[in-house]
Amino acid sequence: MSLRLLPAALAVALLSSAASADEGMWEPRQMPELADQLKARGLEMDPASLSNLAGKPLDAVISLGGCTASFVSPKGLVITNHHCVYGAVAYNSTPENDLLANGFVADGFAAELPAQPNARVYVTQAITDATDRIVDGLDGMDGKGRYDAIEARSKALVAECEAPGGLRCNVYNFNGGLQFSLIRQLEIQDVRLVYAPAASIGKYGGDEDNFEWPRHTGDWGFLRAYVDKDGKPAPYSKDNVPYQPESWLTVSQTPLEAGDYVMVTGYPGRTNRYRLASEVRDTIEWGYPESVAYFKDSLATIERTTRGDKAAALKYASTVAGINNALKLYQGQLDGFAQMDDPVGMKRAREDALKAWLAGRGAEGKAQVEALAELERELAATEATRERNRWFPGVASGGLAGTAVQLYRNAIEQAKPDAERESGYQARDAARLQGNMKSMDKHYDAGVDKALMKLRIERYLAQVPAGQRVPELDRWLGIDAGDKAVPGLDAKLDALYAGSKLGDETVRLQLLDADRAAIEASDDPALQFVVQVMPALLRLEDEGEARSGRISALRPKFMQAMIDFNASQGKPVYPDANSSLRITFGTVRGYSPRDGEQMTPFTTLAGIVQKDTGVEPFDAPKAELDAIAAGQGAQYRMASLGDVPVNFLSDVDTTGGNSGSPTLNAKGELVGLLFDGNYESLSADWIFNPELTRSIHVDTRYMRWAMDEVDHAERLLEEMGLPHD
Amino acid sequence: MSLRLLPAALAVALLSSAASADEGMWEPRQMPELADQLKARGLEMDPASLSNLAGKPLDAVISLGGCTASFVSPKGLVITNHHCVYGAVAYNSTPENDLLANGFVADGFAAELPAQPNARVYVTQAITDATDRIVDGLDGMDGKGRYDAIEARSKALVAECEAPGGLRCNVYNFNGGLQFSLIRQLEIQDVRLVYAPAASIGKYGGDEDNFEWPRHTGDWGFLRAYVDKDGKPAPYSKDNVPYQPESWLTVSQTPLEAGDYVMVTGYPGRTNRYRLASEVRDTIEWGYPESVAYFKDSLATIERTTRGDKAAALKYASTVAGINNALKLYQGQLDGFAQMDDPVGMKRAREDALKAWLAGRGAEGKAQVEALAELERELAATEATRERNRWFPGVASGGLAGTAVQLYRNAIEQAKPDAERESGYQARDAARLQGNMKSMDKHYDAGVDKALMKLRIERYLAQVPAGQRVPELDRWLGIDAGDKAVPGLDAKLDALYAGSKLGDETVRLQLLDADRAAIEASDDPALQFVVQVMPALLRLEDEGEARSGRISALRPKFMQAMIDFNASQGKPVYPDANSSLRITFGTVRGYSPRDGEQMTPFTTLAGIVQKDTGVEPFDAPKAELDAIAAGQGAQYRMASLGDVPVNFLSDVDTTGGNSGSPTLNAKGELVGLLFDGNYESLSADWIFNPELTRSIHVDTRYMRWAMDEVDHAERLLEEMGLPHD
Repeated sequence: MSLRLLPAALAVALLSSAASADEGMWEPRQMPELADQLKARGLEMDPASLSNLAGKPLDAVISLGGCTASFVSPKGLVITNHHCVYGAVAYNSTPENDLLANGFVADGFAAELPAQPNARVYVTQAITDATDRIVDGLDGMDGKGRYDAIEARSKALVAECEAPGGLRCNVYNFNGGLQFSLIRQLEIQDVRLVYAPAASIGKYGGDEDNFEWPRHTGDWGFLRAYVDKDGKPAPYSKDNVPYQPESWLTVSQTPLEAGDYVMVTGYPGRTNRYRLASEVRDTIEWGYPESVAYFKDSLATIERTTRGDKAAALKYASTVAGINNALKLYQGQLDGFAQMDDPVGMKRAREDALKAWLAGRGAEGKAQVEALAELERELAATEATRERNRWFPGVASGGLAGTAVQLYRNAIEQAKPDAERESGYQARDAARLQGNMKSMDKHYDAGVDKALMKLRIERYLAQVPAGQRVPELDRWLGIDAGDKAVPGLDAKLDALYAGSKLGDETVRLQLLDADRAAIEASDDPALQFVVQVMPALLRLEDEGEARSGRISALRPKFMQAMIDFNASQGKPVYPDANSSLRITFGTVRGYSPRDGEQMTPFTTLAGIVQKDTGVEPFDAPKAELDAIAAGQGAQYRMASLGDVPVNFLSDVDTTGGNSGSPTLNAKGELVGLLFDGNYESLSADWIFNPELTRSIHVDTRYMRWAMDEVDHAERLLEEMGLPHD
Repeated sequence: MSLRLLPAALAVALLSSAASADEGMWEPRQMPELADQLKARGLEMDPASLSNLAGKPLDAVISLGGCTASFVSPKGLVITNHHCVYGAVAYNSTPENDLLANGFVADGFAAELPAQPNARVYVTQAITDATDRIVDGLDGMDGKGRYDAIEARSKALVAECEAPGGLRCNVYNFNGGLQFSLIRQLEIQDVRLVYAPAASIGKYGGDEDNFEWPRHTGDWGFLRAYVDKDGKPAPYSKDNVPYQPESWLTVSQTPLEAGDYVMVTGYPGRTNRYRLASEVRDTIEWGYPESVAYFKDSLATIERTTRGDKAAALKYASTVAGINNALKLYQGQLDGFAQMDDPVGMKRAREDALKAWLAGRGAEGKAQVEALAELERELAATEATRERNRWFPGVASGGLAGTAVQLYRNAIEQAKPDAERESGYQARDAARLQGNMKSMDKHYDAGVDKALMKLRIERYLAQVPAGQRVPELDRWLGIDAGDKAVPGLDAKLDALYAGSKLGDETVRLQLLDADRAAIEASDDPALQFVVQVMPALLRLEDEGEARSGRISALRPKFMQAMIDFNASQGKPVYPDANSSLRITFGTVRGYSPRDGEQMTPFTTLAGIVQKDTGVEPFDAPKAELDAIAAGQGAQYRMASLGDVPVNFLSDVDTTGGNSGSPTLNAKGELVGLLFDGNYESLSADWIFNPELTRSIHVDTRYMRWAMDEVDHAERLLEEMGLPHD
């Protein structure tokens, strides 16, 4: 049943903004409130135990920064997705010893390989409410002052929290600034690669199967966290020892079936479920289509400029993969919106119902209605300059211009006390910034970058109306605000790229230490370009921060009203995802994409053979195909399926950042790893449709089967206390 | 599970050439042999009753020529597919009274509308074995003599059979000429349109859904057979009365469920299941790809030459629809072959197994092996001139050239005694030939036809090797056999089309009476062209008939060997489809197109709402959408589905020609109408895969619901003895 059938029902569900079916990325602290729902779905643990950060299972759930992972042994063994250990595998691969292609199994601790230098394991130690320390006394401040105050207070909290060392602290904003939390994590720096299957298992289906069901991906990988002999985080040393976590997850040996309870704990990145109707409209009519068009043109530009140049093509391979992923993500959301019967209307109906309810709440209600109207005005003002806000900074980005911006901005910020510097240019960011300067070469080709810069300039000229044009940029381009073309643009860009020395790593690293005057005096045309447009970049940034400050005073009022509205109906509200730890729960189940068609909840080993073409990305290893053909590993079979389950679907509510999250059964045992959502789930970041939104998990029975029958990772099975053939 | 998983199992199934699962288009006479299988599937009737042509249900099953239909009342009411009454509806439609768009329900006998003049209802009266009368004494004849003898004997049998009048008789070739049957049918000429739903129900989904599942097509329509007052077939007269059939089908009131027995009786057109491996190879590597490429180029040519010319576009609308249908049909077969693991190898394995078995059968076996080898040689010789055989006659076809060929050939044949004339030019064909000459204008535009003739000439030049080229055509083109281009081709074609008068109906009808000398003396350039190439056309025809005669002596031996081989394993063999009456039986069931995905066996009214876009072909009538929204017609709902079933799938074995066939339940009651197969079924014309091949039926519950709630055809429901709201 598609959304077309459900406008009325969905509008009602949206009005309540609470979980019908299994919508909801809940904060751990909310679990006791949900005890009845959890029990109804089949949870066999005390719901209160899911609020306890210091106990199992939550303290076994860790972050890799962008991915979620779990401890699965007392010796710091970490399980996550293959695509989350991909960087560690790539870092250790050489043409002669291609671990990506062949997979890797360490045969003992000594054989475990250091991951890439920026690899981290973050173990959440505490979540503290920081609302008062952030918001007290902000009321009288204007937009920019309010923004700066929030920034300064957040930085102060983080600095204080990180002082003991070995820690990473962050302030998280919930419900648009209604609450703030300070989250303290142990930052383990010595991370080693323990096991990854061959990419033809771990990335089976590749980009083609990305966001798709049916799926047959062996998306698991293992790391290990190492600390110094005192148990403290430390950089890699051969003397380091495995970290001993307080808790670790147990891999289930109870067969998971369709209809069973499952839950996923992890770090979902971002959702937009509480955006206003006007924001949804702007996204559908302009934001996403604009991105999709630009992604397509970028891909065509890279394709055209790297054709016949294998070295350049290789440099842009990961960029192309990233754009393709984003393109599918954005197009998928647009397709999802198009399938819905008036998504903007659904949000509008929610706001109307809220306003109607607030109308009966006297002065407090009236103030909330007024705040909502004021928020709408701020959003309308932002929308009025959306073309400029996107395309002017777009011109000053990319390989050459973006690097020049970072260098000049760094010089500007270094003149300030550390606490006052822009985030990204503080002392704690120095290593990352230096890393950026070092790694630029790997992803940069002057010819390709020049063509992309030209594309962005053309977008700026075509899309930004005369009234929004930026004088500093127009001056550099040598045109007036009314001009839609730049005479001699190619020659100008040729001169820019031919004259700049920023392609040279030594030059870039030297410039990281240059002061503002030195950069402003430089005759490098890329720096001269940035010096010319930086005043406009900073002006737009200030304007944006001032608006952000004003919105930060308004959106919390809308969210408080939504929460009160729902509370009046006895319904808890979960905050939009913000990369903090969440729990989502539901049921193993398929879905019907349309009348007459049903997606079944499990795929099988037989499905791999069926799908396999022998050509990447459908090129399962011979050892795997042989093991399937021989019927090896009968103990991993699911009786009701007559085969080993490979991937499964559930209706839990997840998004990007949840990758690698443990999927737990009713007893809290590990039954799978979350690794993707179906195509229909993409638009769920905005509007959750319980009939179509499904998460995709890799089944631990497939993982155990492959570890036992294909990869011979018996050492790890034993470490996890699992039997094997 | 796709064919990739099943090479071994399928090869075994093919070796036996007998029905595993529900493969098999059985001759009625074979049903008693299949009693055990029929009972196992759930048949609740005496299997022998399915062999009785003179009893229910078989004598209620009739042919419309190209479609199948059934009597459903004692007053000659005929049920078939909407797409089988389409011609009758179109014939009665005018821009002011568009019955196609609006649908039509006659409110009484007097309101029933005469169908198009060539509409017929054929009631099978007898099937007589004619093998002896066709084949006795053929052994000594050479190829051409044998071919001519078979033709002459067939024509004599038909003439004798049709002598009493009001009858249509045909000789059908079974198993490649191993058996012949003479089938005698009552030919009812007064056929009237009784009821057709709006095209937005009857053709819902249009070409887009053609050969697809899930499906929501209301593909039913009603005719009535009329005869004179003496009960004899007669042309339309207002004094004619409804025909009173001996039997008629009862519409089921027992709920049909997934897993239930169903059978389909009808007139499947053509299958190729007993073709040799070499024929399959030639089809996959050359025959179908050549057709697909030509179809695509033809569509592009028509698109290009009708652009901006609405009248021309309308003239070619049905041609375009036909090419699109054929394109999907051929491409679907190629896609199906591509999905199989070595389809040629499967056929080869069958032949090898047969030969191994024959090797143990002494002299008789040896003779059969030799016949098979000889058959292979004949096929190889045909293949050696395949390019010429296709593209030379191709040039002499189409609107102008094809009409000229018919006119000249008619003049040639009219000089012979009727019995010796080429089929298509006998006295019994005169009306049809005159009809062709009259209707040409409706589908002909000189500009489009010229571009298509040029396309075929280019194909001839590009595809036919020098050694196969046809001197007569090359001479007309003014080139040598080695030339790959024709200088001044456009001017030549311009002159041909500008100079010919065959675009004029009066001229064409006059020329139908012209003798050979008159046509050869004509200065019409189209006739001059045909006069020049006719010797080559006739030479190729003679060669083809001689080969056909030789093959007609060999293929029956292969088929006899296959039948003996299967008989040795206790397995009956059904003959390839040949437009004669067949029965296929099986089960209502969905299928899994791939691991993780299941097609469910029923679609629903809710699915129509879900699919509907308001734009053709997904533009259900408002009255229907309103009736669905109002939940009307609860009595037609299927409890297990909670909705009215619309279309359903079964694993019975059908092909083109089966359209409109009654789908009967275990008691022989009407539960649906066969109207299509799924995309995966297309290649089943060559190789039947029981896992993927499904037939698509419209459920009589949907038909009754729409008749009752939307179209108000209560009169017909009552005539069929059905309750209504």
